[in-house]
Amino acid sequence: MPSNHTTPKPPVDVLAWSGDAVTGQLRLLDQTLLPNEVAHIECRDAQRVHDAIATLAVRGAPAIGVAAAYGMVLAAQYLPNTQDFHTGVEAAAEYLEGARPTAVNLAWAARRVLARAQRTLSDDYNYIRAALLDEAKKIHAEDEALCLAIGRHALPLVQRGGGVLTHCNAGALATTGIGTATAGMYLAHQAGHAFTVYCDETRPLLQGARLTAWELAQAGIDAVLITDNMAAQVLREGRVQMVVVGADRIAANGDAANKIGTYGLAIAAAKHNVPFYVAAPYSTFDLSLAGGEGIPIEQRAAEEITEAFGRRTAPANIRTYNPAFDVTPADLITAIITDRGVISPVNEENVRKVIGT
Amino acid sequence: MPSNHTTPKPPVDVLAWSGDAVTGQLRLLDQTLLPNEVAHIECRDAQRVHDAIATLAVRGAPAIGVAAAYGMVLAAQYLPNTQDFHTGVEAAAEYLEGARPTAVNLAWAARRVLARAQRTLSDDYNYIRAALLDEAKKIHAEDEALCLAIGRHALPLVQRGGGVLTHCNAGALATTGIGTATAGMYLAHQAGHAFTVYCDETRPLLQGARLTAWELAQAGIDAVLITDNMAAQVLREGRVQMVVVGADRIAANGDAANKIGTYGLAIAAAKHNVPFYVAAPYSTFDLSLAGGEGIPIEQRAAEEITEAFGRRTAPANIRTYNPAFDVTPADLITAIITDRGVISPVNEENVRKVIGT
Repeated sequence: MPSNHTTPKPPVDVLAWSGDAVTGQLRLLDQTLLPNEVAHIECRDAQRVHDAIATLAVRGAPAIGVAAAYGMVLAAQYLPNTQDFHTGVEAAAEYLEGARPTAVNLAWAARRVLARAQRTLSDDYNYIRAALLDEAKKIHAEDEALCLAIGRHALPLVQRGGGVLTHCNAGALATTGIGTATAGMYLAHQAGHAFTVYCDETRPLLQGARLTAWELAQAGIDAVLITDNMAAQVLREGRVQMVVVGADRIAANGDAANKIGTYGLAIAAAKHNVPFYVAAPYSTFDLSLAGGEGIPIEQRAAEEITEAFGRRTAPANIRTYNPAFDVTPADLITAIITDRGVISPVNEENVRKVIGT
Repeated sequence: MPSNHTTPKPPVDVLAWSGDAVTGQLRLLDQTLLPNEVAHIECRDAQRVHDAIATLAVRGAPAIGVAAAYGMVLAAQYLPNTQDFHTGVEAAAEYLEGARPTAVNLAWAARRVLARAQRTLSDDYNYIRAALLDEAKKIHAEDEALCLAIGRHALPLVQRGGGVLTHCNAGALATTGIGTATAGMYLAHQAGHAFTVYCDETRPLLQGARLTAWELAQAGIDAVLITDNMAAQVLREGRVQMVVVGADRIAANGDAANKIGTYGLAIAAAKHNVPFYVAAPYSTFDLSLAGGEGIPIEQRAAEEITEAFGRRTAPANIRTYNPAFDVTPADLITAIITDRGVISPVNEENVRKVIGT
């Protein structure tokens, strides 16, 4: 890890722990209120953390994992100083995992803190509580480090004076560091490079408009907001030299599931010979899946399309089709930028070479 | 033209003239209020028509042309019964043309009414006014007939039990008849064919959600609303067998300007070998332009992206890029379906063969 002065600070603190393990608390940025209001949720118990995850006040797989880890520490503050402590920690992990059953980092982080409790053999329950906080802080620090590692691989790809196009929010707000898709942008900005980031607004939930455009603007990066259907035109006009997005799950062959709209963007990038990059940490890979066809596509509620602006914008009772994700096949991805290195060309052999087996 | 019982009635009246040339007026459906409210704008002068065009209360190249023609009649009501009348009619044409730069029908219709004034040699200015109204009504009736003729060519392409994907609104609401892109759908529906129409919502102004989904539902056609960035996924899943869109201006080589997002959709359709059709009347062709690069692209206000429907969904002061149209190159268009026949393959020779020189 570099010394602090070479690491760009994320434009905003997604979460912050204050105090010790016994009386400390977690402060979460309430992302549901962005970009209109910067407000925080003070979490003094696990329920508050659970609800913040469930309502998307904190979102993005990496950030959710870190929040859940601290949620475990909060749960332990209320547990008795008896052997029941351990039963309680186990129950807390199960409870927090239930906040968003599909987010794999959530279960991973809660289980990791639970395991730390299980292997900390002591009669001093505050000593165990301190161990849990230590584990949560480790998960937190690792998440920051993964973002930075991705950013170092992505930095050389950001052209001075050029343009970058991104979709949805795979930014600092989705992690506790400098993001995944945005990591190279923050490092390039810190290095004094001027460039422009075109942000797809990302219907239906507008994460690009509400979150990505906001966090880049906070950091002083030149951001231009477009609607999703303008991306092909922006590519055609030669305004961008690279497209970079995050991923929700990547199969062994490199097929990548990401926010709906990513696939169409990849087709348009290929048509214009603009490189299309996916940026994600090693933990996003699901090597148990041979290809993207094994990734389940979540269908979401019609109201996200028909009433997304707080006002009905479609006829009553209109049918909708609302897949939350799509899968971009490996052959449309120029490279996958991970914390462990760059996978290119994208195929199973190279995925396993960089990520492991 | 067929007898009335074989022509499907448009699901709604986009505009209606009432009264004579000297005191009559134009009633426009205010499409900005759809789908929540069906309200009208009474136009008693050209300014009201100009503003209705500029604010998209009336929109769609054919409907704009008809509205502008009647706008010329309204302008003439205020002109003096002297030789200044003719200067005034000329100024009115120029004024109305300025309401929106991309739609060629606007200038075409205004110029046609102007030409009628210029060739009507009389000292009786009310006689000239009546001639202008006659010309506007001819343009209006022709527009209805053009839609029907387009529909007849498109009808065989709509597969029973199949899917059609469309973008924006090139529907009945964009014309004074049964639409251009929708014409084949209305005829197929009238003939008892079952099929499904996927409607891109069409950000930023949501014409697909507010208008196309609404008018198809009014007519009892099975419509499914999607966000623009879902179209590639819908194509990939094999849900549609044809894409059909309208056009705002078509160059001599077949390059077609249409609502932003059309170009990306054409790329995605080509990727999936799904035929991509443009439906437009002969008046949409601008044979003075060799190719699409000569078509001016209107840039619109940032607020359309950042404050859709009165609620801010993006950071304050964020930069935006908001082109209202894009140009789909002829090589991505399977055929152009016109009132005069089907142009395929799309190239200058075939355009001139079908449309004329």
